Amino acid sequence: MMNAYDALMAHQRQTEALAQVAGRLAWDQETVMPRGAAEQRAEESAALQAVLHARRSDPRLGEWLAAVDEGALDAEARANLRLIRRSFERVSRVPEALATALARLTSRAQGQWAEARGNEDVAAFVPVLEEIVALKREKGAALADGGDVYDALLDDYEPEAKAAELQAMFDALRPRLVALREAALAEAPPAGVTGTFDEQAQMKLARKLARVFGYDMTRGRIDKAVHPFSSGSFNDVRITTRTSPTDPFNCLYSTIHETGHACYEQNIDQAHGFTPLGQGVSMGVHESQSRIYENQLGRSRAFTGWLYSEMRDAFGDFGIADEDAFYRAVNRLHNGFIRTEADEVQYNLHVMLRFDLERQMIAGELAVSDLEEAWNARFEADFGFAVDRPSNGCLQDVHWSVGLFGYFPTYSLGNVYAGCLHAALRAALPDLDLHLARGDLAPATDWLRDNVQRHGGLYRPREVIEKATGGEVSEAPLLDYVEAKFGAIYGL
Amino acid sequence: MMNAYDALMAHQRQTEALAQVAGRLAWDQETVMPRGAAEQRAEESAALQAVLHARRSDPRLGEWLAAVDEGALDAEARANLRLIRRSFERVSRVPEALATALARLTSRAQGQWAEARGNEDVAAFVPVLEEIVALKREKGAALADGGDVYDALLDDYEPEAKAAELQAMFDALRPRLVALREAALAEAPPAGVTGTFDEQAQMKLARKLARVFGYDMTRGRIDKAVHPFSSGSFNDVRITTRTSPTDPFNCLYSTIHETGHACYEQNIDQAHGFTPLGQGVSMGVHESQSRIYENQLGRSRAFTGWLYSEMRDAFGDFGIADEDAFYRAVNRLHNGFIRTEADEVQYNLHVMLRFDLERQMIAGELAVSDLEEAWNARFEADFGFAVDRPSNGCLQDVHWSVGLFGYFPTYSLGNVYAGCLHAALRAALPDLDLHLARGDLAPATDWLRDNVQRHGGLYRPREVIEKATGGEVSEAPLLDYVEAKFGAIYGL
Repeated sequence: MMNAYDALMAHQRQTEALAQVAGRLAWDQETVMPRGAAEQRAEESAALQAVLHARRSDPRLGEWLAAVDEGALDAEARANLRLIRRSFERVSRVPEALATALARLTSRAQGQWAEARGNEDVAAFVPVLEEIVALKREKGAALADGGDVYDALLDDYEPEAKAAELQAMFDALRPRLVALREAALAEAPPAGVTGTFDEQAQMKLARKLARVFGYDMTRGRIDKAVHPFSSGSFNDVRITTRTSPTDPFNCLYSTIHETGHACYEQNIDQAHGFTPLGQGVSMGVHESQSRIYENQLGRSRAFTGWLYSEMRDAFGDFGIADEDAFYRAVNRLHNGFIRTEADEVQYNLHVMLRFDLERQMIAGELAVSDLEEAWNARFEADFGFAVDRPSNGCLQDVHWSVGLFGYFPTYSLGNVYAGCLHAALRAALPDLDLHLARGDLAPATDWLRDNVQRHGGLYRPREVIEKATGGEVSEAPLLDYVEAKFGAIYGL
Repeated sequence: MMNAYDALMAHQRQTEALAQVAGRLAWDQETVMPRGAAEQRAEESAALQAVLHARRSDPRLGEWLAAVDEGALDAEARANLRLIRRSFERVSRVPEALATALARLTSRAQGQWAEARGNEDVAAFVPVLEEIVALKREKGAALADGGDVYDALLDDYEPEAKAAELQAMFDALRPRLVALREAALAEAPPAGVTGTFDEQAQMKLARKLARVFGYDMTRGRIDKAVHPFSSGSFNDVRITTRTSPTDPFNCLYSTIHETGHACYEQNIDQAHGFTPLGQGVSMGVHESQSRIYENQLGRSRAFTGWLYSEMRDAFGDFGIADEDAFYRAVNRLHNGFIRTEADEVQYNLHVMLRFDLERQMIAGELAVSDLEEAWNARFEADFGFAVDRPSNGCLQDVHWSVGLFGYFPTYSLGNVYAGCLHAALRAALPDLDLHLARGDLAPATDWLRDNVQRHGGLYRPREVIEKATGGEVSEAPLLDYVEAKFGAIYGL
């Protein structure tokens, strides 16, 4: 007779394996699926999701959880138990009919959003988004059980984070980022790259970058997709990137960013495979890895020196005279509408805007029909120029259309975590720049693997960062870093 | 309240969708999966197969099947019911422990076979195959319920076929094929192609061939794999092929063969999607489509005339002077060990050998430890020369290692069906060669779509062929066709 914990973990193991299958299916859809298969695929994915939902809400989970003798378990087993209990309680609180309605609605809504964005037609999307907000609010209320509805939604992406804490984080970030932004944009901008860049050569260099950042190609692959992403866990972790003939940094830095996500998944202790500990612990910690790879390491003066010579080898002359000019080109600020294209100074301002607006929508303080007006007003106030069209404004992101409310702030949380980790990493590796300048990322990525990535879901999100840094999470290291970096670049 | 039939079909629909997901996963494994992911993938696939097994043996199926009011159903619904009942009865007869043991054994055995083949080491594979034969025999006995054990296994691939009928088929094929083979090989062989053939140009031409044979690229794709295969149903049907720098026919005819399989799946009435009618009805009928595309159409004098000029355009001079010489080069016989490389005359002799040996193994008349000796003796008797090494002999095919007993004869059945269909097609389309000579396959593939492919699983396998041809299935059309064709080529 299997004991309750073993029975629970045997069930969970199959669930985790099926969740990986769902990941492969999603990868397939974005990379290789024939376009005529879209409708059929929706039904295939829905069938698999239904199996996953049934397994995650299986009443036997409740019985096993009640029967486990927790005192007899070690720390890993207790962590597994905590995560399974958390998942089961959350799934159990959401009525089946609501879960089904949300799944059906958001699967349809992504296409409707894409069409509305293509037509610059906010009005067409408003009724869809109204439905989504209503159902998400209902889901949040079911999950919150009397507590804060937005917090309950946030918990899907950043377990145990609270909106009030995030608000405090944004309040700390905002004044210094705004001041830095204004000061930098008042200066003459550094020169950018010019000309066209062979797209095959971009992909070749992207593959090299992924490898030098520690991505194990025998347990992954790189393909092109419309939107870069990372997918899968432990020994099958794939990334995608994209190329633009005039902007090589889009491809190269998207690749480094996704490599950060992918290395996190690849570097989790193999013993955690097919358990709840076998994935990155939260979106915020995940984003800390992609951001520190992309920005604090990938956009550093030392590393860009090496990258400059790689790019000269790959593309010849591209209008940048030396390493210093290249460093400034990689890090130049510009006025832009689009979050995903924003630089290190302005990125978090884009996120704050979304965080505030989505909280207001969930709280019922902002009607969806007023979203466009609120977005445009806030954007102009924050960035000093007006949104010219909805695809550059409130229709630019896919997130809300697929029901992701509470996701945006994890991007900024990831930046703050990356700031903390970067300070600790620099303290631990005083000669890091010597390595970065040779394109040697190993000391940095080894440190991140050993101090963050290998743990997977063993600790709580904030705990992971605090264990790695030996201190409290704070916005100060990130702010100090961007002020020093961009102050020097712009001569402030 | 849903009636029993609707409940049954709703359950089945999800099962079919999950079976499609399993197909995608298998495609991924053979084409794009990182090699380091193999072990992990085995667990992912096993989890999905466990879900499928549980759904197919769900006791509610028995209740719904018992409750359905069959008299109230139309022909399609009755066909669905027949196929679901058949599947449920078969699954129910195999004890869970046996099914699990077989799945585990065969998943491991494929690797062991590949290793044994690589090392030319039959002895290493014998104990594995002994276990497989023992378990397959046990499974066959459970399924047969007192009837013939081999028939019960055969039923997995060719429902309702009987070994005795197949024996009669091989008895009819054997003397005339042996005589034709000997007569042809006594003549001077036609010249073959010479030189090397750019592999990208081969793939380009392969894609063109797939299109002219009616493959819908918006609902499929072509990739390279070690072994060509076709995968998936209705709107996501993918094929793979391979290239050899010195043998362009390997790529081109593998592609046409797989296009036959793929068109069958793509052309089934869309209304049958996600029902038991939504796939090819049997391996034999499937193979009839791949074979008629590849051989009776693809290797015809008329079509090869068109192909010759396409190949001249793609590759320049390759040592063949004119269309007639090209036709003979495409159809030349050669002494060879390998079934998959055999020509139209000798292919079925390779299959007969396997059919006889596997029946004897299942019946316990041939010990697995004596297989190599039996194979080599039979091969020399049939083909007139000795097997030089196991990878050219009893270790050449993957089938037995993955538990496929009863599968081989469906290849010959497919050839016989293709012979019948070809005779009917020629009768229906007297000017077919005028079209083939222009590379216009549409009249032939339209006829096959309308008379065979669109039905999917609506009729029984043999019924499909008999409806299409308006007569009984017979070996005569195939034999008449190969004798006429190769008699002319070899001047017999």
